Amino acid sequence: MQGTQQQTPPAAYTPTDRTVPTRSPERAAYDRELVHAILDEAYVCHLGFVRDGAPVVLPTLYGRVGETLYVHGSTGSRPLHMAGRTDPGLPVCLTVTHVDGLVLARSAFHHSINYRSVVVHGIAHQVTDPEEKRTALDALVDHVVPGRSADSRPANKKELAATSVIRLDLNEVSAKLRTGGVNDEPEDLALPHWAGVVPVGRSHGTPQPDAGLAPGTEVPGYLADL
Amino acid sequence: MQGTQQQTPPAAYTPTDRTVPTRSPERAAYDRELVHAILDEAYVCHLGFVRDGAPVVLPTLYGRVGETLYVHGSTGSRPLHMAGRTDPGLPVCLTVTHVDGLVLARSAFHHSINYRSVVVHGIAHQVTDPEEKRTALDALVDHVVPGRSADSRPANKKELAATSVIRLDLNEVSAKLRTGGVNDEPEDLALPHWAGVVPVGRSHGTPQPDAGLAPGTEVPGYLADL
Repeated sequence: MQGTQQQTPPAAYTPTDRTVPTRSPERAAYDRELVHAILDEAYVCHLGFVRDGAPVVLPTLYGRVGETLYVHGSTGSRPLHMAGRTDPGLPVCLTVTHVDGLVLARSAFHHSINYRSVVVHGIAHQVTDPEEKRTALDALVDHVVPGRSADSRPANKKELAATSVIRLDLNEVSAKLRTGGVNDEPEDLALPHWAGVVPVGRSHGTPQPDAGLAPGTEVPGYLADL
Repeated sequence: MQGTQQQTPPAAYTPTDRTVPTRSPERAAYDRELVHAILDEAYVCHLGFVRDGAPVVLPTLYGRVGETLYVHGSTGSRPLHMAGRTDPGLPVCLTVTHVDGLVLARSAFHHSINYRSVVVHGIAHQVTDPEEKRTALDALVDHVVPGRSADSRPANKKELAATSVIRLDLNEVSAKLRTGGVNDEPEDLALPHWAGVVPVGRSHGTPQPDAGLAPGTEVPGYLADL
């Protein structure tokens, strides 16, 4: 690597001991674009950390900027506070999961779900650079509704001071997927039970405007793209 | 408590140090029925445990029988294996989250989501009693599709031996919820940005039958209740 020259990241993340699953390794994937797509589609992640020797898993919003994920919260929130106090950072595991289908087999044993998940291992660090913090907060808003950060009042100094942001680089990353149909045993195929896949997805209802919108304020076009 | 007399559990879980959130404690709830409802509605949980001092968070299916959650997996899967090896059990944190709405405020700072989550702290133990294991596996199938376990071939001895089940009792439990509308600052109300809530829900597609269903096998009625 020479100076500040930008490198194109390789097409896939490098597997490590803890990103190769012990079970169903054929379902694991390391493709960078696939990982990004799974991360970008979800609204919340589940962030794991260790507190007093025990695991804690909390749902939280997140944003992505290139190869970095950002999580934000109040300066008083536990993991954000811990990431700030702990040198060199807070070990975390950040997981995102989509359920795509219910797989009903003829046998109870082969019931399953179709899903796509991403697991990120790494060390979370508090963001201290003000510019990076602003970029991260925009990414967090745009993650929920793409295009929204440009159509809202940016955080002011007081709000920025009240918000902590932690960053987690995408280095030790894996996706895991199950797709497709039913895998019953050959001897079960003649059983009289219905078998197949029930697709599961996410739906968005009609936007419900806040009372007291400024006159003439219409539902923005970017909400139609959700 | 007298002998084996069945006690009616109290209407709420008792808060502990780690089930009282440091932030937004007004969003926390301990009502037992509410917790059960949140748990019963989701398909996957995120199970956290500690491995070599670092957190691991994996998505997995689960079932509930009264005040006990069950998670299953291959005998080789990491947390199940660890729960079996570790005496007295494996410390875990099991979290379930529903996203119910996107909250778009006029200010970036007040963007949020409406959600319902449950966090369970405790020690997971391997289930060794064969009867409890069968009950747990039925609960796991019925959790995904209520009524399904009675309409599929039960696990045979070989399948039971290949499956590990761990149990986690509902003792140290909390729910956390955000509901309602936008909480903008009074001075932002006249801003020209649209504000409101976009409802988010889960949708089920048309069941896709497996090739080679026994002739005359129809889509079961319980799928209509999903």
